[in-house]
Amino acid sequence: MKAIVWDKELRYVDDYPVPVPPEGEVLVRMRMAGICNTDLEITKGYMGFTGVLGHEFVGTVEKIGEPFSHLAGKRVVGEINCVCGKCAYCLGDMKTHCPGRTTLGISNRDGAFAEYMTIPVENLLEVPHNIPDEDAVFTEPLAAAFEITDQVHIKPTDRILVMGDGKLGLLSAFVLSLTQARVTLTGKHEDKLKIARDRRIEAVTLESVSEDRVYDVVIEATGTAEGITQALSLVKPRGTIVLKSTVAESKEINLTPVVVDEIKVVGSRCGPFEPVLRALSTGLIDVKPLITATYPIEKAMEAFEKAKDKNSLKVLISF
Amino acid sequence: MKAIVWDKELRYVDDYPVPVPPEGEVLVRMRMAGICNTDLEITKGYMGFTGVLGHEFVGTVEKIGEPFSHLAGKRVVGEINCVCGKCAYCLGDMKTHCPGRTTLGISNRDGAFAEYMTIPVENLLEVPHNIPDEDAVFTEPLAAAFEITDQVHIKPTDRILVMGDGKLGLLSAFVLSLTQARVTLTGKHEDKLKIARDRRIEAVTLESVSEDRVYDVVIEATGTAEGITQALSLVKPRGTIVLKSTVAESKEINLTPVVVDEIKVVGSRCGPFEPVLRALSTGLIDVKPLITATYPIEKAMEAFEKAKDKNSLKVLISF
Repeated sequence: MKAIVWDKELRYVDDYPVPVPPEGEVLVRMRMAGICNTDLEITKGYMGFTGVLGHEFVGTVEKIGEPFSHLAGKRVVGEINCVCGKCAYCLGDMKTHCPGRTTLGISNRDGAFAEYMTIPVENLLEVPHNIPDEDAVFTEPLAAAFEITDQVHIKPTDRILVMGDGKLGLLSAFVLSLTQARVTLTGKHEDKLKIARDRRIEAVTLESVSEDRVYDVVIEATGTAEGITQALSLVKPRGTIVLKSTVAESKEINLTPVVVDEIKVVGSRCGPFEPVLRALSTGLIDVKPLITATYPIEKAMEAFEKAKDKNSLKVLISF
Repeated sequence: MKAIVWDKELRYVDDYPVPVPPEGEVLVRMRMAGICNTDLEITKGYMGFTGVLGHEFVGTVEKIGEPFSHLAGKRVVGEINCVCGKCAYCLGDMKTHCPGRTTLGISNRDGAFAEYMTIPVENLLEVPHNIPDEDAVFTEPLAAAFEITDQVHIKPTDRILVMGDGKLGLLSAFVLSLTQARVTLTGKHEDKLKIARDRRIEAVTLESVSEDRVYDVVIEATGTAEGITQALSLVKPRGTIVLKSTVAESKEINLTPVVVDEIKVVGSRCGPFEPVLRALSTGLIDVKPLITATYPIEKAMEAFEKAKDKNSLKVLISF
């Protein structure tokens, strides 16, 4: 089958073996997949992964026998962490932290940039009919944005700063705006800031943000290691910084302001899929302005080049 | 009067002018003061402070006229942040974060290493008779330990790791043990670890701590910028790190584990005095084993040398 493989170099291949689902898993035929910054970080060495890349997808369950025949032909999205189901984390509603987990296209498991992928049945959610593929493929990154409101109590009276006008910054601003808190997005790209403004979200360049510490919550989604230092200069004393950027490299950081201002720094990763499907189904979140381009799997190398371009937002792969 | 002054160099002087209390303040005659690591950091450039050092003290209110004559002769300790009382932080029960604050011996206000100091009346708490001076002088650092249980819900079923066998580490271990959570203290000094063991607190060298991530809460009180990196390797996924170290220098840090493991990092500074006075009065916390030496103010330079010694704990100054 056609696949995009990372093994010290990025390659498009057309002879990757079609996987055979082990017990408890099903075969999914890809419909559409999305390139994430984590995919780009992996090609810089993050996580030390090798195999088929990709974890954002919408697909169709292949025709299968019992016991999962009721799923055949269903259009699905899937949680990316594949877990043991038996440990204290799995039993304690913290499945995404299962120490034995594998993760689609990120850790010890082939991912979604291939015609077929196997995935545990319990990871799948059926996509409502009124959500088109190019929206459904945003379920995983939008879930990462909903993880913020799952972890931190955002009040409608809060002032929120979202740092970073990349995909995660924009999606976070969309999700946080639903709380009716006053949200400001900062970034460097006028065309990306405009996407937020078109949704009536205040969006400005970082330099034009007041240095006054007025923000109850700052979302650090710059994708850089320096973001935390800027966030610390903008958040209120006793405020909260939600850290979203995963980066391969270390940086010189002085955390003394965290202590002096008693800041709460909350790391935030994968989130819940169900609220995303509700938000996409009701149309309260519109992801289409984030699509920069769509490439067929055969042109995946071009798709990756496009995704690396600082002016790009979401680059999709179609099958 | 006699005083210890920091102004690019540390000096003992005997001709510092006795301060005159402005409106709302009273004159306190020092009885005893304690040297804190923050004092040592200030002599490395932290906070850019100049003036009389010192913020840990117990003293006696001088004989004064109305309106504070009822306070004359009382033995007192005092909160170190002197605040405006009118801003959103002061009115919102976050006085220690008043942006207009001055801080005894740390920021824009002379401190406690002098025969006399002025301090706002509302900062003072009377010391119960059964608490001797050498215990009362620990009120401020013990309050910093109680700030942990004020900020973070410590459950009696939690496993807690306190990193650092310095003064703050030991005091934090004492306070946290009151919750009956299982507390482990780590450090480098056998004699300091023994102080914890004598209180039936598990105390081991850092190397002998299991690398398993079993700790619900890790208190980082090593006084070093590297502490956070070790704390991240020991805390449970979704666990909490309480950051206590304020240091002048930056360090290379990679915060990606905060994101991947969704850790909560909580900065923690000054704490509440009242619970400390209750704990000292009931005898549930015994600070005496932490006293390394007591020097008269005239020998303050020797006291500072002793406080710098890695084998020292609390060095007191008597008046």
